[in-house]
Amino acid sequence: MPILNKDMTLCISLAGRPSNLGTRFHNFLYDELGLNFVYKAFTTDDIAAAIGGVRALGIRGCSVSMPFKEAVIDLVDEIEGSAAAIESVNTIVNDNGRLRASNTDYEAVATLIAEHGLDPFAPVLVRGSGGMAKAVVAAFRGAGFAELTVVARNREAGRTLAEKYEYRHVLDDPAPGAAILVNVTPLGMAGADENTVAFSAEHIEAAEVVFDVVAFPAETPLIRAGRAANTRVITGAEVIALQAARQFEKYTGVEITREQVERASAFSRS
Amino acid sequence: MPILNKDMTLCISLAGRPSNLGTRFHNFLYDELGLNFVYKAFTTDDIAAAIGGVRALGIRGCSVSMPFKEAVIDLVDEIEGSAAAIESVNTIVNDNGRLRASNTDYEAVATLIAEHGLDPFAPVLVRGSGGMAKAVVAAFRGAGFAELTVVARNREAGRTLAEKYEYRHVLDDPAPGAAILVNVTPLGMAGADENTVAFSAEHIEAAEVVFDVVAFPAETPLIRAGRAANTRVITGAEVIALQAARQFEKYTGVEITREQVERASAFSRS
Repeated sequence: MPILNKDMTLCISLAGRPSNLGTRFHNFLYDELGLNFVYKAFTTDDIAAAIGGVRALGIRGCSVSMPFKEAVIDLVDEIEGSAAAIESVNTIVNDNGRLRASNTDYEAVATLIAEHGLDPFAPVLVRGSGGMAKAVVAAFRGAGFAELTVVARNREAGRTLAEKYEYRHVLDDPAPGAAILVNVTPLGMAGADENTVAFSAEHIEAAEVVFDVVAFPAETPLIRAGRAANTRVITGAEVIALQAARQFEKYTGVEITREQVERASAFSRS
Repeated sequence: MPILNKDMTLCISLAGRPSNLGTRFHNFLYDELGLNFVYKAFTTDDIAAAIGGVRALGIRGCSVSMPFKEAVIDLVDEIEGSAAAIESVNTIVNDNGRLRASNTDYEAVATLIAEHGLDPFAPVLVRGSGGMAKAVVAAFRGAGFAELTVVARNREAGRTLAEKYEYRHVLDDPAPGAAILVNVTPLGMAGADENTVAFSAEHIEAAEVVFDVVAFPAETPLIRAGRAANTRVITGAEVIALQAARQFEKYTGVEITREQVERASAFSRS
């Protein structure tokens, strides 16, 4: 084991229920790139004191997960526009005690929309109205998508989200026909509704793109159904790897290749 | 490199000018004993927020160095008697958000007095009146030493320290004759007065024990002079290793052997 040294830069995560994913992803790349960094996941029952500690200890980066993504907004010094708009922070960079917040979930979804060449005139159907759904809908709006429908049983959250971006909200699935289907609910997630396909077979048959934000498993029932129907698929594993890669770049200042992201992601899931 | 994991326990140090010593000492033993711990040195310009961060992030142990040893007293939940008496904390243990402070410098000196079998009826001469001198004088008092003289140019600090333990304070060296000489000033320290022997040749000749709290180098001019005069010597390297070992045991709950302490100490200095 290489012995740590005092000059090592610490990055952390704060989550209600920490996973090993970020710790493995970041430390894998620190090792591969020979960076004098170390990353570790934490939880806390005092988010204000924890963020105060990030500032006072000079912790360089802090990834923020549920349930702290909104609470940290008032604890930082500066917040990037996209994170402010969706009222959700998942990344804090500490520059000599000045904390700058952003949302790399938003950035990752925006990047995937661009990289997969999604057509901004294609109708989009988004299922969900939670924090991640805000990032997804904002990214579609940012990419200029004209027609998007939010499907959400939560009337208040669904309507608020849709209206913010001048989109439509419905309580139940409309008739099949949307070209892009996006699941931003736990449907299909391991340990939750893991056998549920988030959209009907008819919807999938009519779609050109199936996008599942659920990251575990990588091959959700929706992704499997999308592949079977020969649609283009975008997985939650891509989102989570790409958002972690953006965090990595913000913390270290080092750009990484897509191939490095994929290997770190595979390692983090192994 | 073994990839860190989220369940790893973090211990840190807080110092105005962090050294690599503690980081190497603790991580060496974590590795050797297969403990899922990691240790890293930090500095801060906001000690209150840093200690708040220790509590909020569940950082298990926090070693405290200059200039924070007094300031942290008001920031912890409980303080052990010896640390309270000398108004100096160098160790904080976090039990589920409850911070307990102690002073392992005091404990290390007390242990060395006992292990070297120093005679409590032997007259002691202590040079110095700073924070570490408080720990040293308190440890001699705790071991029942009857006759101790504090030599300190700082009239106020010297008198306050001596009177607290019903000892004597003088501004300049008394005539040779003390059996135990203790240096708790920077005399002989690398980078400071590194060629100065902290006591006169006559004092050393008359002594049975020479104890230098200066830890760098391990062989200070005073220690070399003591060895040359065939006195028993106690080095600052012993103090610093033993106090770190006590911290290690408090943080991990694992007792370590003297041989392990010595190897970790040698590694930390290499």
